[in-house]
Amino acid sequence: MAAKACSVLITGANRGLGLEMVKQMVESPWPVRQLLACCRDLDGLRAEGLRDLAKKHPNVITVIRLGEYSLCSIILFLHTLVGSLVGKAGLNLLVNNTGVLTYGTMQTTSTQKMQAAFNTNIMGPMDVTKEFLPYLQAAATASGKPGMSCSKPAVVSISSTVGSIATIKEMYSFFPIASAGLNMLTLCATEEFRKDEILFAVLHPGWVRTDMGGEGGAIDAPESVEGLLCMMDSLTEKQTGAFLDHEGKVMPW
Amino acid sequence: MAAKACSVLITGANRGLGLEMVKQMVESPWPVRQLLACCRDLDGLRAEGLRDLAKKHPNVITVIRLGEYSLCSIILFLHTLVGSLVGKAGLNLLVNNTGVLTYGTMQTTSTQKMQAAFNTNIMGPMDVTKEFLPYLQAAATASGKPGMSCSKPAVVSISSTVGSIATIKEMYSFFPIASAGLNMLTLCATEEFRKDEILFAVLHPGWVRTDMGGEGGAIDAPESVEGLLCMMDSLTEKQTGAFLDHEGKVMPW
Repeated sequence: MAAKACSVLITGANRGLGLEMVKQMVESPWPVRQLLACCRDLDGLRAEGLRDLAKKHPNVITVIRLGEYSLCSIILFLHTLVGSLVGKAGLNLLVNNTGVLTYGTMQTTSTQKMQAAFNTNIMGPMDVTKEFLPYLQAAATASGKPGMSCSKPAVVSISSTVGSIATIKEMYSFFPIASAGLNMLTLCATEEFRKDEILFAVLHPGWVRTDMGGEGGAIDAPESVEGLLCMMDSLTEKQTGAFLDHEGKVMPW
Repeated sequence: MAAKACSVLITGANRGLGLEMVKQMVESPWPVRQLLACCRDLDGLRAEGLRDLAKKHPNVITVIRLGEYSLCSIILFLHTLVGSLVGKAGLNLLVNNTGVLTYGTMQTTSTQKMQAAFNTNIMGPMDVTKEFLPYLQAAATASGKPGMSCSKPAVVSISSTVGSIATIKEMYSFFPIASAGLNMLTLCATEEFRKDEILFAVLHPGWVRTDMGGEGGAIDAPESVEGLLCMMDSLTEKQTGAFLDHEGKVMPW
């Protein structure tokens, strides 16, 4: 992956899968050239691992505070920072990795909690994708190659739950309404940006032992991320709009 | 339908399909016993048709102002009005008919517009369903019959677009992300309230010549509503969680 995807931006990069992705991308034998690692809180203990990695790889990692997903804060940092960092080569890979899991059912989930889940799981990825569009389009132009891949522009969203209509009988207590929206957003974007040759995909990391997934998970973050990066590497125009798990299994919508 | 569904609440009852549903439900040879017709604006020209119908059928129709879908306003009117109106028999049928169509693509749809679409198409139906739950559960108890139908408690949501993942290649420019969420909400609720014998369904009205559907629609509101009411009549526990059109055709998720 790293050899191909030169310039990568990851949201939610300070912990769990995000932090592991940063680690594997920069410590691979073929590290990415440039990694913009975004998270909300740079100062707390929760970003310690990311700050340590950034110190070790100062020429590759730039840590960026991406506050609450308000369009304002995104625009602000974009036009002062990202443009100058990625330059004419543009942004190859945008990884939306900020999903939150909403536990609960209709009866136990408050309006405020649902709204927060929508903001984080759908509006966030949508706003970020919209704002980075010029840099993704620049990468398409700069590549000069036909087809789609994560070494051309690509937007990969990491799904926080199996927001799949086919599995709802087992999963309804996770209330995956926002995930269904993210899947639909991805499908809409796939059609909208096909002409720009921007690849879109949703990847499901498996049930991972992270703060979010809990201790009962089936795999650890390194294993999940190895699978996810391998999948990103293999994506072509045939998979744009796909919903795949970390092992490449096609997930049902 | 009317003979079976005694007590009905409809949101968005002042225009388009909502108004036509009110009309057909009260002017049928077997009118509903009680119809709570909710809309946002009772005073303007836009509620004129509903006010006229309510004057003609004062013992059946109660017009209720259901402001912006804030939980507060719902609670307020609920506990002063609806409880006393439906009494121990409870509420048989809740029709969520407040969807808005979001035209545009990711690039042309603002965060504010998306937020508004979520509020109206998902949070609204969710809040209303949650608040009316005690009355729906009362209707289940009062019916004393097994199984599910719209003469026992049922929640029917009218889909504003074909929020269907299978048709996205044609429909992406309608940005049906909120519709996908409504479908998912319905599926979650179906599983959550199966034990309460509350039926849930999403009905697609077809492409109707209303203010929302535009003049290019394929059918008129009366034809669509005849089909929708007929469908509601025929729903049983076999269809709970279904997504059907006004002709009974199963729609793809």
